[in-house]
This record gives sequence, structure tokens and C-alpha cells, in this order.
Amino acid sequence: MMGGAEIERLITLLGRLPGLGPRSARRAALALLRQPHARMLPLAQAMEHAARAVRTCSTCGNLDTCDPCSICADPSRDRGLVCVVENVGDLWALERAGVHRGVYQVLGGTLSALDGIGPEDLNVAPLYARLEAGGVREVILALGATVDGATTMHWLHDSLSRFNIPVSRVGQGVPVGGALDVLDDGTLAAALMARRPA
Amino acid sequence: MMGGAEIERLITLLGRLPGLGPRSARRAALALLRQPHARMLPLAQAMEHAARAVRTCSTCGNLDTCDPCSICADPSRDRGLVCVVENVGDLWALERAGVHRGVYQVLGGTLSALDGIGPEDLNVAPLYARLEAGGVREVILALGATVDGATTMHWLHDSLSRFNIPVSRVGQGVPVGGALDVLDDGTLAAALMARRPA
Repeated sequence: MMGGAEIERLITLLGRLPGLGPRSARRAALALLRQPHARMLPLAQAMEHAARAVRTCSTCGNLDTCDPCSICADPSRDRGLVCVVENVGDLWALERAGVHRGVYQVLGGTLSALDGIGPEDLNVAPLYARLEAGGVREVILALGATVDGATTMHWLHDSLSRFNIPVSRVGQGVPVGGALDVLDDGTLAAALMARRPA
Repeated sequence: MMGGAEIERLITLLGRLPGLGPRSARRAALALLRQPHARMLPLAQAMEHAARAVRTCSTCGNLDTCDPCSICADPSRDRGLVCVVENVGDLWALERAGVHRGVYQVLGGTLSALDGIGPEDLNVAPLYARLEAGGVREVILALGATVDGATTMHWLHDSLSRFNIPVSRVGQGVPVGGALDVLDDGTLAAALMARRPA
């Protein structure tokens, strides 16, 4: 239609990115087309480099350009503290916050009856192997406070009990900076349940 | 930091696209990194092809892979009807709607005292040349109903008067599908001014 097949294809592929609809894909394509050499080619090259360099860490499931990933290979990280997360985005969030000095295990999903995801679909074998090898002092379950996240944490707690290693889960309650009157009932209930001496 | 320099660079460049902030850039990068061969490389190649193929039409200012662009080169378009738009995005919007069967002139901006954009910064020389060459029956000013758009239409109307060619501007009023009680005062005033026999 307009601008030839190359431009149409660019808009179509951009529109498949999460967070970009047809309208914002056109805006993004226009911004790139206006500066093909300053903006579009550098982005295209960054994508090619990343696509060829990126691999999944065989230890923890993180995405990185080396295997084991830079977190697993970092001698300053505490290997005795394993934090279990659903996906790499959650791992990135914890790393940005800088609140976990141990290592990770990326499950690659949560149990979900609706989506037909069972225990055999989760990347837990490397976690079992690590716990069997010894040296792990605590497993922290850092999954989302959703039905599937809670189900998965419950199942993990059971299936890890045979290792006799303390298993904890992240706390629930009022988010920092959050006003009470905008929170949902479930969060308010969880916050009341998790109360502690002031 | 996380995932190596290649992933960091990809997130940075994606975050510079309009409509993507740091958070959505990370989401988009993760979606691409999860399918490097199915998603990231095709997008990278589409960008490279588009960056090398795209050019600005020397007649109307449209972006296309040929010059003159496919609209200017289309013998079925009415060259006597020139629609003046601010940018290529506006041209695309009119083409998607399929409401203009003539040709276009892309100004590349609007007059703006705040941004220091004067008449010499607008791409109007090709329009003057076309009007001097003859054969144009009407110029339609299709600029946005903003202060800068209105200023530009006013100035264009003046500067085109020497050609003795009818100059019109797009109508203003209630958008199709729009409820009156959500419209701003300016639109309501314009809609009342533009009233016509029912």
C-alpha cells in the first residue's frame, strides 16, 4: 500500500513487539525511517549482534552472552542463596533493585491448569541438581502473587521438602509508596495477615 | 550490568523509539531475545532493507522506496488536487482512510514561534514550483487544529494567494462517533461555527 513492501513489513514486525500496537508501530517506523543511518541501522545491528551472541545459562536459565551467565560466574555472589523466579524479566527486576546477592533459578513459567503447564514443563531439574550437590543454605521463592504463582510456590515447597533445606517465599503486603485506598481486597487481606509489631 | 553489553545496548536503542519507555523496551527486548531466530533476526533484516531502500520523494516529500514516490507516480491520482500535510504520518493516515484521490505535499513541520520554525524551514518550494507549472485546480490544507497548525494554514493561505488557485482547509467540528459532552470548548465552538442546514 503506502511506502512499498519494505516499509509495510517493518511496520508489521514492529507491531508484533509487546507494548506496540499498529498505531505505535507506525510511529516507531516513521521515527526510524526519518533517520535510517543514525537510528535504524544501529538498532538493526544491535539486534543482529544480540541474536547471535545471546544464550541461555545452562545453570540458572538466565539470558546472557556467556554460559554460565555473568551472575553464575561471579565469584562474589552467594551460591548458598538460590532465588527462584518465573522468568528472566523478574530476574532483571531483582537485579535492578540490587536486593539479592545470591544466585537465581529461572523456572520459565508457572504451573497453570488453564494453559496446561505442569511440573514437567518447568525448568526445575537444574535446581534439584544444585540442591543435591550441597552447599545451598536457603531457597527463596520469588514468584508473583497470582493464583498460578501461589500454586507453583506451594508445589515447589512440597517438592523441595525432601532436601531438608529452608524454603522461604517473598513477603506480601502494601507496596512501598502505595496508598491503602487504591489497593485491592486481596492485598489488604495479605497485608493484615502479615502484620508485625510496630 | 545484566546480560552483557549486547543486551544493554539493545534495550537502550529500543527505549529511544517513540512509545517505548525503559520498561516496555525491556519487555520488547526479552520477547526478541527469547526467539532470536524467529523474531529478532527478521526484524533486524527488515530494518536494514528499509534503511537502505527508503528515500524522500523529491516531488512531495513522502517516504518511499522509489522517487518519485508510488503516489506521485500513480497515473490514476488527480494531480490537480494537492493536499498539504504536516508530515508523512499524516499522509499515511489520509491514505489509510482512502479519502483523498489527489496528490500530496509534505511540509515537514509547522510554523512554530516556540520551536523557532519559520517559513524557510518548511518544504514549500516544490509546492510553489508545482503551482507555477500549472494544472493544479485546488490546494487543500490538511494541518492539525492546533495553534501552530492554524498559524501555518493562515500563512500558507496568504502566500499562495498570488497563484490565484482556490485554497481550502479541512473542516472542523465533532469527530465522527464523538459524543458532545466529552469535547473541549474549542471543538464545540468550531462545530457551531461550521453548522450547516440539516
